[in-house]
Amino acid sequence: MKINQFAIAPTTLADEKAELLGIQFINQSDLQLTPHRLLHRLLQQSFPEVMSTEAADSKIANLLAADQLDALSLTQTSYDIKPLHILNLILQLLGFEAGREFELDAPAKIPSKVNLPKFRHETLTNDDLLHAWYQLLITHTTTGQTFLDQLAGRGYFQRRKSLPKPLFFNGKAQPVFDTTQLIHEVVYVESPQDTDHDGLRDLLKVEITRPVESNQQPVPVLYTASPYNQGTNDEAGDALTHDVNVPLTEKKPTSSTHSDNQPSSEKLPDPRVVNAQTTQADEAFGNTFDYSLNDYFLARGFAVVYAAGIGTKESDGLRTTGDPEETTSTIAVIEWLNGKRTAFTNRTANIAIEASWSNRHVAMTGRSYLGTLATAAATTGVAGLKTIICEAGISSWYDYYRENGLVIAPGGFPGEDADVLAEETFSREQQAGDYSRIKTKWQQQLATIGEEQGRDTGDYNDFWDARNYRKNANNIKADVMIVHGLNDWNVKPRHAEKLWRAISQLPISRKLILHQGPHIYINNFRSLDYTDMVNLWLSHELYDLDNYAEKILPDVLVQDNVSAENWQAYPDWGAPDNQVAHYHLTPSGLSTESASQTSVTFNDHLEQSLFQRYAKDNAQWQRDLVKQSSPLDGHRQIFQAPVQTDELVIDGCPTLHLNVSSDQSVGLISAELVDLGEFKRLNPLPTTLARQAMAVGYHFRKEDLREYELAKKESPYQLISKAHMNLQNRKTLTHVETITPGKVYPISLELQPTHYRLTAGHQLGLIVYATDFGMTVRGNQNITYTLSLANSWLELPRL
Amino acid sequence: MKINQFAIAPTTLADEKAELLGIQFINQSDLQLTPHRLLHRLLQQSFPEVMSTEAADSKIANLLAADQLDALSLTQTSYDIKPLHILNLILQLLGFEAGREFELDAPAKIPSKVNLPKFRHETLTNDDLLHAWYQLLITHTTTGQTFLDQLAGRGYFQRRKSLPKPLFFNGKAQPVFDTTQLIHEVVYVESPQDTDHDGLRDLLKVEITRPVESNQQPVPVLYTASPYNQGTNDEAGDALTHDVNVPLTEKKPTSSTHSDNQPSSEKLPDPRVVNAQTTQADEAFGNTFDYSLNDYFLARGFAVVYAAGIGTKESDGLRTTGDPEETTSTIAVIEWLNGKRTAFTNRTANIAIEASWSNRHVAMTGRSYLGTLATAAATTGVAGLKTIICEAGISSWYDYYRENGLVIAPGGFPGEDADVLAEETFSREQQAGDYSRIKTKWQQQLATIGEEQGRDTGDYNDFWDARNYRKNANNIKADVMIVHGLNDWNVKPRHAEKLWRAISQLPISRKLILHQGPHIYINNFRSLDYTDMVNLWLSHELYDLDNYAEKILPDVLVQDNVSAENWQAYPDWGAPDNQVAHYHLTPSGLSTESASQTSVTFNDHLEQSLFQRYAKDNAQWQRDLVKQSSPLDGHRQIFQAPVQTDELVIDGCPTLHLNVSSDQSVGLISAELVDLGEFKRLNPLPTTLARQAMAVGYHFRKEDLREYELAKKESPYQLISKAHMNLQNRKTLTHVETITPGKVYPISLELQPTHYRLTAGHQLGLIVYATDFGMTVRGNQNITYTLSLANSWLELPRL
Repeated sequence: MKINQFAIAPTTLADEKAELLGIQFINQSDLQLTPHRLLHRLLQQSFPEVMSTEAADSKIANLLAADQLDALSLTQTSYDIKPLHILNLILQLLGFEAGREFELDAPAKIPSKVNLPKFRHETLTNDDLLHAWYQLLITHTTTGQTFLDQLAGRGYFQRRKSLPKPLFFNGKAQPVFDTTQLIHEVVYVESPQDTDHDGLRDLLKVEITRPVESNQQPVPVLYTASPYNQGTNDEAGDALTHDVNVPLTEKKPTSSTHSDNQPSSEKLPDPRVVNAQTTQADEAFGNTFDYSLNDYFLARGFAVVYAAGIGTKESDGLRTTGDPEETTSTIAVIEWLNGKRTAFTNRTANIAIEASWSNRHVAMTGRSYLGTLATAAATTGVAGLKTIICEAGISSWYDYYRENGLVIAPGGFPGEDADVLAEETFSREQQAGDYSRIKTKWQQQLATIGEEQGRDTGDYNDFWDARNYRKNANNIKADVMIVHGLNDWNVKPRHAEKLWRAISQLPISRKLILHQGPHIYINNFRSLDYTDMVNLWLSHELYDLDNYAEKILPDVLVQDNVSAENWQAYPDWGAPDNQVAHYHLTPSGLSTESASQTSVTFNDHLEQSLFQRYAKDNAQWQRDLVKQSSPLDGHRQIFQAPVQTDELVIDGCPTLHLNVSSDQSVGLISAELVDLGEFKRLNPLPTTLARQAMAVGYHFRKEDLREYELAKKESPYQLISKAHMNLQNRKTLTHVETITPGKVYPISLELQPTHYRLTAGHQLGLIVYATDFGMTVRGNQNITYTLSLANSWLELPRL
Repeated sequence: MKINQFAIAPTTLADEKAELLGIQFINQSDLQLTPHRLLHRLLQQSFPEVMSTEAADSKIANLLAADQLDALSLTQTSYDIKPLHILNLILQLLGFEAGREFELDAPAKIPSKVNLPKFRHETLTNDDLLHAWYQLLITHTTTGQTFLDQLAGRGYFQRRKSLPKPLFFNGKAQPVFDTTQLIHEVVYVESPQDTDHDGLRDLLKVEITRPVESNQQPVPVLYTASPYNQGTNDEAGDALTHDVNVPLTEKKPTSSTHSDNQPSSEKLPDPRVVNAQTTQADEAFGNTFDYSLNDYFLARGFAVVYAAGIGTKESDGLRTTGDPEETTSTIAVIEWLNGKRTAFTNRTANIAIEASWSNRHVAMTGRSYLGTLATAAATTGVAGLKTIICEAGISSWYDYYRENGLVIAPGGFPGEDADVLAEETFSREQQAGDYSRIKTKWQQQLATIGEEQGRDTGDYNDFWDARNYRKNANNIKADVMIVHGLNDWNVKPRHAEKLWRAISQLPISRKLILHQGPHIYINNFRSLDYTDMVNLWLSHELYDLDNYAEKILPDVLVQDNVSAENWQAYPDWGAPDNQVAHYHLTPSGLSTESASQTSVTFNDHLEQSLFQRYAKDNAQWQRDLVKQSSPLDGHRQIFQAPVQTDELVIDGCPTLHLNVSSDQSVGLISAELVDLGEFKRLNPLPTTLARQAMAVGYHFRKEDLREYELAKKESPYQLISKAHMNLQNRKTLTHVETITPGKVYPISLELQPTHYRLTAGHQLGLIVYATDFGMTVRGNQNITYTLSLANSWLELPRL
């Protein structure tokens, strides 16, 4: 078991003593105790569930300091207290089992990776014991939390009076706020636009959960903008999903697919006249979506705010799938939290309510569309938004639904497009009364999106340009933490990488975490103290705590793809000055030696029954694509590199240079980079190690404990990266050219960025093909592609 | 969507009015309102999250009473209020979407199954409206709870003062207790035995969660005895798991495998001397296992108690896997809850604490081992235990680890046995200090269990007889609710059926629910109001509410295996007077016509690589077993009945009569009954429809919503039932005889009980074989079995 902790703040002994006093783990008089009595005191404090000394002693006697020596006896004897004794006790308190996970006569040799204290003496002094216990408190147990968090879940802070709120320990906010008295309230923020054109500014429903203590002392806010959290129209979305079994069609050549025309702005209605002011909300709410990372912060002195935005249930407006209007609606909430905008207690009485409980420091959180809106908000530079934690967020919607002039589906969702997502999230539809009044406008809006998204061309046009947040990256003032899965084929890694590059020169703090998952949350992995990292970060960002979070947290943290529970810090991802490995494409495979002068071809048309099978079962198509001797022989070209004798670490965007022709006036090229060889690789999804094992507070919420494990069986390959291009867009993205059948064109195809460790014995593979059954349109067209290998090569950025 | 509700108590209009007044949904003066104003009032009450009339009116205006007529307008006009209006409003409030799930001009024609009110007038009166709203409140929404429970989750009861506690509505306890003020406490019950022979009576750790209101007024108790909830020793259990790739060996003949000798009883140590009495617990607890059905009852005025029993962490004693000592430890907790036994605040100070907050009415709950201990407790007739809800419980441990003289594994756990389970649950091992003091005794105990369980014979001996709860079934005084999965191959359906039969003549109330799942909980299915049924039952059993639960709930409720969301009530399961269908075994299949005079044979030995493959992949073996033309040809005999032209409903235990010989002096016979044919069947596991969709209280716990769905693809077969027998035990279970090679013996093999609907087009199949890769030992012995078909037939009990 490897427990990687990156959120530990370095401390001196003086810091440690002061902080132990601060959380009332010890008091001043304890410092005068003999080491044996101090040890007893520290052990007693480690069982917060018991009140009496007798009860604590029963627990203490169940720990062994050494073989044949229980901890209670140790405190009662005059034996010297040795490092071995304390290490044994610490490991047991952390949840390691003596005799199975470590040996009592050599605890320091525990095979698990765990943060252990260093001792300065062979016979331990009070200072040694205090240092040991401080380190114990900040070390992760076997169930994914610091020991102090575990003590909190067992009632540690509930039993202590007059603790300061907030309370920090090792730079991180502690759960001292009362989660039994949380306030749940709804307000309606008036946004500075009228997207449904009813002559009234859009009201936006906002759901707030905050500690009652915030009535006395303002607290910071975690704000999650989630278009999903008022419900989704899944069936209507499915019905709108586009047929992808359609041919690729020829596009009219143009020198630019988009204009720089600004949309004409309509007159904005006046704000509502405020009839009265109140501090008392008029509406509460019950069960809703919540992100357990947000929940974790409630006990630690943060408020949590969810808003679904324009066009969602009980808000005004229309869905737009990521345009500037949606961004405006997203930041209206921040502006209200920052005292700059009006909210009302309900939709009609015009009674205003202030966020008097907000300390005006806001962070945005959430994954996928939620992280997307965090990025969108940050690119406005809105005041009060101190940081965003963008998990698997979209940074440009073109890169979500399109690529290089092609319609490209997010993995797993063929036929989805901006209009489908708009329909799915237009939860106003779920209220028949409201929907009956807005239906006509909504149908118009949906038709407009359907038209403007340009599914017939795949072009980067004004619609997509308006949904490219990266072009406004220079406006970002918030510090940014990006979290992304290197195997996320829904929101692909490009979104993270291009945002990371776009903010690289800005005067902000930036952090990046790349994990081996697909489109998932990572706040409950045993091997990583992600939650602590976010705590360190947010204590700094939102409580202005001078905890050096920006220095302590690694700039780039990457989960290893070869071994489980392995996280490594790096200075950058895909740095421009990375080395580059070059491979020629030759008929016998990828070669670092010399180029080939020959050509190879493949044809994209499949026999109908095979086509139907792959259209139904994309996973089977993917397996056959990679397999030598499969029904796809002749329909793709595989280039294998020699078996690795050394390790290769790819870091950044691979680029594929091809000289290619189509025998038709249309054509598309796809490429996949794969790791070949029968090896045990990480499972595609984390395993749930223990259900509900982590307490997020004292009898508050619970969270499963999960971890990526190595598969029990070997697998033949792992996808590393991929890319697609319309040959009509071969020069630049916004330039459309004709294709002369048979004419060879040079193209440069930037694959999705990655960080991939290819160890000795593995083999790199490149597959060049056309139709991607999971992502492109599938016209099953009879097109033959020819690759002139002389000028075809692959460039891999490497460490 | 079919929502089956069995827990609705019939009511008169007078009842309904009185109960609506009782929960403050209306007050007396509301009865004098005009229908339009009363409707407004009822609608307003249906939005408990809002305080002001303006806010409520916004919500009401979002409901449509008819096309072009919103609900607010209806209350403000003089239009007659029609049944159509109210049905439309009810369906929307339940979560059905107008225009998609029902039509506004014909709501009564909704294709979903849902409880709707009946109206007596075409223009609705106040009485009609009150009836309608009462029915609405007790009807399930689309997310698996009654509308009133959903309102509770949105704060309905929190906003009302001076409600009586407990409060019942339609015979069921309502969530009016304060879950933010729950008390968590630990006590140590002194049990009347000393199983670890340390000269002190065993202390048993008990974890209590109870509403603070129980300090004023005692509440009933849901008690779950869970040997798992203090942790498990999974690795040690795995290490102890027995090799099943061993031959079946010949047993010495005996006329009885067990004696009726009673174990000699040791002198019991005196009880501890009580030093003092207190009402204040000395210990609390944090995050532990909890069953969401128990959690649901906390807000409804019930306490929840967990105890892990002898040999678990922080309790005394040794694990025994189900013997009378474990039963004694289980009921000691009930005796304390009933004022008949002493508990202490901690393990050493001898300060006694009474369960003054218990109303001395206890129910036991839980699944698997937990349900097993509920059954064990009930068979003692212990006072205070009013009912057990036994989910997937073992009723005789022989039937869990053995069958007809064979070692038979619970499905999915080859090699597990009583000693393995004892080791897995001996959580005292997790505390090094405690373990160091008990280790020697424990190793002895484990060796004794290992010896006495008689894995070398598979015999029903004294060890197993002591673990047969059914022989004490006549002692049962508690009412019994049994819940079991018809596809549970871990704790097989026999446990439920034999218990059901054993209690059939007792003067108690009995209920049985059979679902289509394997070894799972069912308290979050959308199609069944199981939680409400348990509420109706426990309100009656534990609060003595005269709600006719015993009459309202069906005696036997069975989930259909053919169609999804279909639950049917029956008077009995496997009734002795069921009809019986007879099938002769013939070379051309199962025949209702005439017997065959021929013999057929099969040999049990497999080629080594095939044997290894099946030993590793039991699922592959199962598929090949059923498949015609598989590697198992010649290794089993398949008998297929003609394709069903009519429906056949098997109900009870199929019995297979065979005339069989072995060519060795050992032999075993296995049989499977299967449903053949390419059809869409229910998925093996329920689908999670919505994560955390059900609120178990107001901002308290949440629960996923699940449902069994029909598979999207056809499957070739479904297992119906199976059985195994050692041919040396062919006469009676406890009688061992020799086998003369080649000699034909008649045997009668009782298969697992079932309730299975075989519809037209399906085909019944019987497979006779020997080694069961998932359950028997796998000696890969070269044994040839011969079936004389003349006297071989199958009997199916049928409805």
